[in-house]
Amino acid sequence: MAKQEKLVKSITSMDEDFAKWYTDVCIKAELIDYASVKGCMIIRPYGYAIWENIQRIMDGMFKELGHENVYMPMFIPESLLQKEKDHVEGFAPEVAWVTHGGAEELEERLCVRPTSETLFCDHFKNIVHSYRDLPKLYNQWCSVVRWEKTTRPFLRSREFLWQEGHTLHATAEEARQETEQMLNVYARFAEEALAMPVVKGQKTDKEKFAGAEATYTIEALMHDGKALQSGTSHYFGDGFSRAFEVQYTDKDNKLVHPHQTSWGTTTRLIGAVIMTHGDDNGLVLPPAIAPIQVAIVPIASHKEGVVEKATEVCDTLKKVCRVKLDNSDQTPGWKFAEYEMKGVPLRIELGPRDIENNQCVVVRRDNREKIFVSLDELTTRIPEILAEYHDALYNKALERREAMTYDAKSLEEMKEIADNKPGFIRAMWCGDRECEDKLKEIAGVTSRCIPFEQHEIGDTCVCCGKKATKMLYWGKAY
Amino acid sequence: MAKQEKLVKSITSMDEDFAKWYTDVCIKAELIDYASVKGCMIIRPYGYAIWENIQRIMDGMFKELGHENVYMPMFIPESLLQKEKDHVEGFAPEVAWVTHGGAEELEERLCVRPTSETLFCDHFKNIVHSYRDLPKLYNQWCSVVRWEKTTRPFLRSREFLWQEGHTLHATAEEARQETEQMLNVYARFAEEALAMPVVKGQKTDKEKFAGAEATYTIEALMHDGKALQSGTSHYFGDGFSRAFEVQYTDKDNKLVHPHQTSWGTTTRLIGAVIMTHGDDNGLVLPPAIAPIQVAIVPIASHKEGVVEKATEVCDTLKKVCRVKLDNSDQTPGWKFAEYEMKGVPLRIELGPRDIENNQCVVVRRDNREKIFVSLDELTTRIPEILAEYHDALYNKALERREAMTYDAKSLEEMKEIADNKPGFIRAMWCGDRECEDKLKEIAGVTSRCIPFEQHEIGDTCVCCGKKATKMLYWGKAY
Repeated sequence: MAKQEKLVKSITSMDEDFAKWYTDVCIKAELIDYASVKGCMIIRPYGYAIWENIQRIMDGMFKELGHENVYMPMFIPESLLQKEKDHVEGFAPEVAWVTHGGAEELEERLCVRPTSETLFCDHFKNIVHSYRDLPKLYNQWCSVVRWEKTTRPFLRSREFLWQEGHTLHATAEEARQETEQMLNVYARFAEEALAMPVVKGQKTDKEKFAGAEATYTIEALMHDGKALQSGTSHYFGDGFSRAFEVQYTDKDNKLVHPHQTSWGTTTRLIGAVIMTHGDDNGLVLPPAIAPIQVAIVPIASHKEGVVEKATEVCDTLKKVCRVKLDNSDQTPGWKFAEYEMKGVPLRIELGPRDIENNQCVVVRRDNREKIFVSLDELTTRIPEILAEYHDALYNKALERREAMTYDAKSLEEMKEIADNKPGFIRAMWCGDRECEDKLKEIAGVTSRCIPFEQHEIGDTCVCCGKKATKMLYWGKAY
Repeated sequence: MAKQEKLVKSITSMDEDFAKWYTDVCIKAELIDYASVKGCMIIRPYGYAIWENIQRIMDGMFKELGHENVYMPMFIPESLLQKEKDHVEGFAPEVAWVTHGGAEELEERLCVRPTSETLFCDHFKNIVHSYRDLPKLYNQWCSVVRWEKTTRPFLRSREFLWQEGHTLHATAEEARQETEQMLNVYARFAEEALAMPVVKGQKTDKEKFAGAEATYTIEALMHDGKALQSGTSHYFGDGFSRAFEVQYTDKDNKLVHPHQTSWGTTTRLIGAVIMTHGDDNGLVLPPAIAPIQVAIVPIASHKEGVVEKATEVCDTLKKVCRVKLDNSDQTPGWKFAEYEMKGVPLRIELGPRDIENNQCVVVRRDNREKIFVSLDELTTRIPEILAEYHDALYNKALERREAMTYDAKSLEEMKEIADNKPGFIRAMWCGDRECEDKLKEIAGVTSRCIPFEQHEIGDTCVCCGKKATKMLYWGKAY
């Protein structure tokens, strides 16, 4: 038994090797398995149940704002991909090409969608004619393919699951509002469902989406001080509409081009959760997306009445949370380790003495704090404890991010921080691409975003010393 | 206005051209749009909302029986596809091949999954070692690709959405039970969610799935007398396990091969619903999967109090069904035609006189029957009427199927029926593949299934006259 416990727990510690710790958690918590297809992953039941919770919550937020789900083909003819020049330049180098159907060579090769702007535009052209047809507020849940060289589970894989919103509006103003609204939805989701603080801001021209006029992003800071782009929202203006000849008759009977947005989040969010909350005992899940929120472990379950009482507690709790009673013949110690590895927020220990005292012991995953709860108060106390737990995770992550955010006023300071202190670096910037490139070269950092919440660190560019226009977040990123 | 009504209603009648009627409904009810990618379709919001309802109900049925969702890669390396001989022979001629990633040619080409048995086996080999690891009850919702020559929306397209269940069991007996259980789940779903009667049975060896020991099917009869295979469940024995070297240690510490099943249904079910219940006014949807179950159309809505009352009725009904209030500036006549086209089960007409009488008029989509319902009884009466409506659709479809099912005792009779009477033909069969091929050649029919419910039509094979072993359903099929 001791051996089994050790087996479950044997993951590399974060400090020893963060990358190894990460993949250990992915495998040992049974989130993924590697596939025979290089660079692709198998999402196992426990990992997929997390994704289903993410989908359910996010899909509800989208629908509440009037978005509808659709499904577009997974293939894009090469000629269609090429219609918007910047877009094809950005994506063509990393798409997978289908060249044969059965034994026959195709007349035109098809790429497996890396993103679906081109398909949506082609469809919009068919169905949008009058201002009465606008807005179109569409979303799609699907998988996309990008032929990456280096891959890691959830963070960067050749195929990944995502949602991509695509909307079309009568005016630029309306499209801009949508772009901003959806970024706010992502930020709210990150905070409320993932207990993950994010910085909201705009990408520089260098970092924006291929074909977009403006890209907005939410950036999170991982345990190791690297940044993770966790969701993006793009404003296209009428660039795609023009390229695809999408037009509508406005109220004054004039033919005009509509304005467009797209926005997306991916299974990468699961990677974000692992690296935001996880610890050396494994995964730590925020309650909103945890497949199991409470695991009940009976103690001395051979004793009379223990299993019966545990079943009763389980049935009671089913009304207020996702609960699992583990009646298996493993030892309590094995079960404790198992549910810690899987990041279950709370475990309930229930033994003969607890039953005698009409109580149970609730143990928090994050700090192993023990809370005694009366069996009569379960349906009110457990939701309260889960809410407190969510807040505790959020606050801890926020505190860490704040402790790992540094201001740099000179290039030397920037390099010094980048070399020695993992985290976000805030610094002023003149707006020139050249300085962005140089900071990458010298300090190894990329611009993460121009945050909406600006504050002045100085008035000159950290790189060239010319007049600064904006404060940026910089960092090393996944 | 008259023009608008006509525009909405202008679909080909079933009798004139059934195939054209079908695609007209798909387009005019806004279920699909054609895509630039030949043979693929765009599923529009109304069509996708139907699929979401199908998914939600079916997924619940799967999970209740202990199945878990996973996600496998969409690509299968050629060498992996080739591991099971019959399987690759069946599928290789109709798969799409990815040969390039970005600008580079791949070392080994990948097919876009036509089905995922090979991927699941490869994964099972990694994760199954002991009898304690069994059973594995997995399901996946995804899209698959089969490079078909002739395509039709929902019925046969190069890419389609589906669910594929894949389970692994310790014994043949358990796997057989699972195969049968899931066929029963499909039949129950067809009847309870789609109001569609089906014949349950086994496929002949000629018609079974590539690589299966036995394939079971539910077969439905469409309005035009053609059969539609609507869901299949396969028993693989240990064939795949052997080919992929999946083994486990049983309770006696012996290494043995587990037994396997798979089962699937697709967006084809939407086609089945269209052709089972639809009429010359458009789609007719069973309530369980209808995105809108009740459409409220205010009459003389400029009169005082009408919109307010309609809103009140809508809010009341939201508690018991999916309801939409149409306050747009179209005429009631336009709206009637629109919701008929979209197959909304019930519409509620509410005008000043109805309000005076504290009632509303409920109109059924199928027969336009008008039912007066007191505004005080809405939350009990509407669910009742929806339930009656479901039963009416089911019974009508069942009666039609029975009226279109014929018994044939000789080859001449078979040909005579096949040429003149669209529908199912029941006839005895000796079990020889030769007779099956001959019936296809002479009468143009294929074997649909060997029904579980056998009844003797004679004792000799309808084709060769030798001793018959089974009664079969035959027919022309989609």
